[in-house]
Amino acid sequence: MKQSVLFFLFIATALSAFSQAKDEAAIKQIFDEALSKGKSYEMLYDLCTNIGPRLSGSPGAAAAVEWSRNVMEEFDFDSVWLQPVMVPHWIRGQKETGRIISRKQGTLSVNVCALGGTIGTGPSGIAAGVVEVKSFDELKALGSAGVKGKIVFFNRPMDPTKINTFTAYGGAVEQRANGASEAAKYGAAAVLVRSMGSNLEDYPHTGSMRYAPNVVKIPALAISTRHAELLSQLLKEEKDVQVYLQNHSVTLEDAPSFNVVGEIRGSDFPDEIIVVGGHLDSWDLGQGAHDDGAGCVQAIEVLRLFKQMGYKPKRTIRAVMFMNEENGLRGGLKYAELAAANKEKHIAAIESDRGGFVPRGFTVPTDATAKAKVRSWKPLLEPYGLSDFSAEGGGADIGPLANQGVALLGFLPDSQRYFNYHHTAEDTIDKVDKRELELGAAAMAAMVYLIDQYGLK
Amino acid sequence: MKQSVLFFLFIATALSAFSQAKDEAAIKQIFDEALSKGKSYEMLYDLCTNIGPRLSGSPGAAAAVEWSRNVMEEFDFDSVWLQPVMVPHWIRGQKETGRIISRKQGTLSVNVCALGGTIGTGPSGIAAGVVEVKSFDELKALGSAGVKGKIVFFNRPMDPTKINTFTAYGGAVEQRANGASEAAKYGAAAVLVRSMGSNLEDYPHTGSMRYAPNVVKIPALAISTRHAELLSQLLKEEKDVQVYLQNHSVTLEDAPSFNVVGEIRGSDFPDEIIVVGGHLDSWDLGQGAHDDGAGCVQAIEVLRLFKQMGYKPKRTIRAVMFMNEENGLRGGLKYAELAAANKEKHIAAIESDRGGFVPRGFTVPTDATAKAKVRSWKPLLEPYGLSDFSAEGGGADIGPLANQGVALLGFLPDSQRYFNYHHTAEDTIDKVDKRELELGAAAMAAMVYLIDQYGLK
Repeated sequence: MKQSVLFFLFIATALSAFSQAKDEAAIKQIFDEALSKGKSYEMLYDLCTNIGPRLSGSPGAAAAVEWSRNVMEEFDFDSVWLQPVMVPHWIRGQKETGRIISRKQGTLSVNVCALGGTIGTGPSGIAAGVVEVKSFDELKALGSAGVKGKIVFFNRPMDPTKINTFTAYGGAVEQRANGASEAAKYGAAAVLVRSMGSNLEDYPHTGSMRYAPNVVKIPALAISTRHAELLSQLLKEEKDVQVYLQNHSVTLEDAPSFNVVGEIRGSDFPDEIIVVGGHLDSWDLGQGAHDDGAGCVQAIEVLRLFKQMGYKPKRTIRAVMFMNEENGLRGGLKYAELAAANKEKHIAAIESDRGGFVPRGFTVPTDATAKAKVRSWKPLLEPYGLSDFSAEGGGADIGPLANQGVALLGFLPDSQRYFNYHHTAEDTIDKVDKRELELGAAAMAAMVYLIDQYGLK
Repeated sequence: MKQSVLFFLFIATALSAFSQAKDEAAIKQIFDEALSKGKSYEMLYDLCTNIGPRLSGSPGAAAAVEWSRNVMEEFDFDSVWLQPVMVPHWIRGQKETGRIISRKQGTLSVNVCALGGTIGTGPSGIAAGVVEVKSFDELKALGSAGVKGKIVFFNRPMDPTKINTFTAYGGAVEQRANGASEAAKYGAAAVLVRSMGSNLEDYPHTGSMRYAPNVVKIPALAISTRHAELLSQLLKEEKDVQVYLQNHSVTLEDAPSFNVVGEIRGSDFPDEIIVVGGHLDSWDLGQGAHDDGAGCVQAIEVLRLFKQMGYKPKRTIRAVMFMNEENGLRGGLKYAELAAANKEKHIAAIESDRGGFVPRGFTVPTDATAKAKVRSWKPLLEPYGLSDFSAEGGGADIGPLANQGVALLGFLPDSQRYFNYHHTAEDTIDKVDKRELELGAAAMAAMVYLIDQYGLK
């Protein structure tokens, strides 16, 4: 080998070793700061206890917008601004009533809640016989003869044998999303859907449902998994069990709201933008702690950590609090629309919307080069428990950026406890572990750091 | 290549593919069963709520021995028996008192608890000035002149930047274990030790301490991390802050107790024993849910899963509930002593004593062959979130088997939340997630299955 080649190899090896040592040190600094003097838990505690639920269009959502702007301004990011967006405005109304009327057992109160987007039953409620199904195929087989005038009870559980609980959720959630419209085709009076929870619990899980066009709108409520089991058992014993449901939900005119954006401008490539975000809206039953207060404070914490460390990013880093992920995705759509209109060049977007649990890894971009690059960083991230880079894709809010060629990633915390709390009154700050939340913020900061340093091309 | 060689390679490849498919199916069956019809959570709920705390020598420990025997007999294991062992018998006595007496702030009540093994203060308690140190070196530098007659306040926190919280614990726990004897060398009146907790909390953590030979015994108590911060702050403001401590602990004569053993006899190699275990004793403040009720029910669940699946192990599988891990290790020592006396051939032992949290991996045997073999199974276990096989060693209870050449492994769940609950009144069943516990039981069963199939030589 010629000496010049040897020299080149020597330099390349030395540079690579230098980069690796530099990156290891930067990532350690990120984690040290987040775990010893992090602000993510303090922020989330404040958001959950002083603002709490923040469904799109609600006073809580408006307060959360102001809260986010204030927090990021106090951290003195380079710019903080609001992006106006009109959002759906659904209101649950007064607390729902659910009863089982059984010949043998008498009248039993059960825990139900309206699904987001449903109409109300009217003040006198609906009492009807019940038909239990586990799939749309079963429903179809029953047809109008079996369904007309009845309450359809969708009772297919989340599959407990799926290790990733999001897979189990994906296998059951059509009942919640589309059950009402499917049942209405056959003349059902209402639907009652088994809650999307991993375990037997006493509290119901809400979540969005939608009415298909040209189908009669019927009320759609969720029942706690434990009461779903009870109802199913009673139906086995006496076929003419009735259920009484009452809810008072209405959909109002679209309401004005905002995405909230904070930015640190890049030193070398200010036009290249890296987004890190979560969604600011939450369901109305809990405090939106894991879903998705956690993602919001982690996004803010990424920028704060960089400032605190004195790290000057080469590229522009934006923390985005998207509005209306839960029942419309209007914020995500608006953000992408403005990015296109303003000819902004986003090189990557990372969403955290799987709870503030202990980090496991990231979902990676679909583009082969970007994917390979992200996976090549695994040795730097594995010491922090980040070892799963197998799945592809980003998150709901950043999804609309895909057709602008933006590389999308998702923060991947452990999924086991997520569907204990998801969309329930139990999604409160006491279910969030401080260290787990902090590790997530640091994981996201480490990923943003690497993308900022090396790009994804 | 000769045809015979080609044929051999073909057969070897086919057999290997067959084995892999068989192992994948068996492991999937284990996880499916544990997650859909598992009994580990039900068992732990029963142990925690109907028996609760079970410190060595206590009525709770005796009840837990009977409970374990009954549960394993009801599952119809091939044999269930007790191994008698004498255990230390320390009693906390009535609830401790802790007060800070400050000129500026008046008298402040603080949350303290006696450390396991400590003497009492006597009924009138101890009131004294306080000297804060963060290390034994600082203590030594103060010497008798700075320490005599004082309460030594050990206030070195667990290092929050350690990703593995057991590493942080290891870096702080000498204060609890040896602080009293170190301080007594310089004439201290008592020691007050910052609780071994990952966060700022209101409740103290107990745990074992020991008196060195030939050193005066002085009382040793723990203070909650939040009150440790308070005391430290007050000491900065006024040097003559006093602390009042009162506890009534005594050590009685050693008491009779038992290890509890359940066994399924092997079909092919019944003399080769694989142990899977946890410790049955717990501290007296909580319910011993994570520490180590979780490990006990997971060990029982391994055998129950095999029976339920109709899996007939080649080797003998034993679930061992060790007594007295917390303050003596007498059960672990007795088990190893009997194994040697009875000339039993243990090929492996796996302990679960890091809580019922989501699985991360296993610690592996130190022997090179066994280690390589365990690590070679990673592809079979990684789909279940088991990816960390980096560390070596087993657990405290199985440690005494090491000098009989037994391969020792440890179940490795995620460590982030362990020291929120460890040795506190908060270690209760509601802190255990059902799926996380079940995944741990299945992980252990999968590892036992592989060792049973292939050995570790």
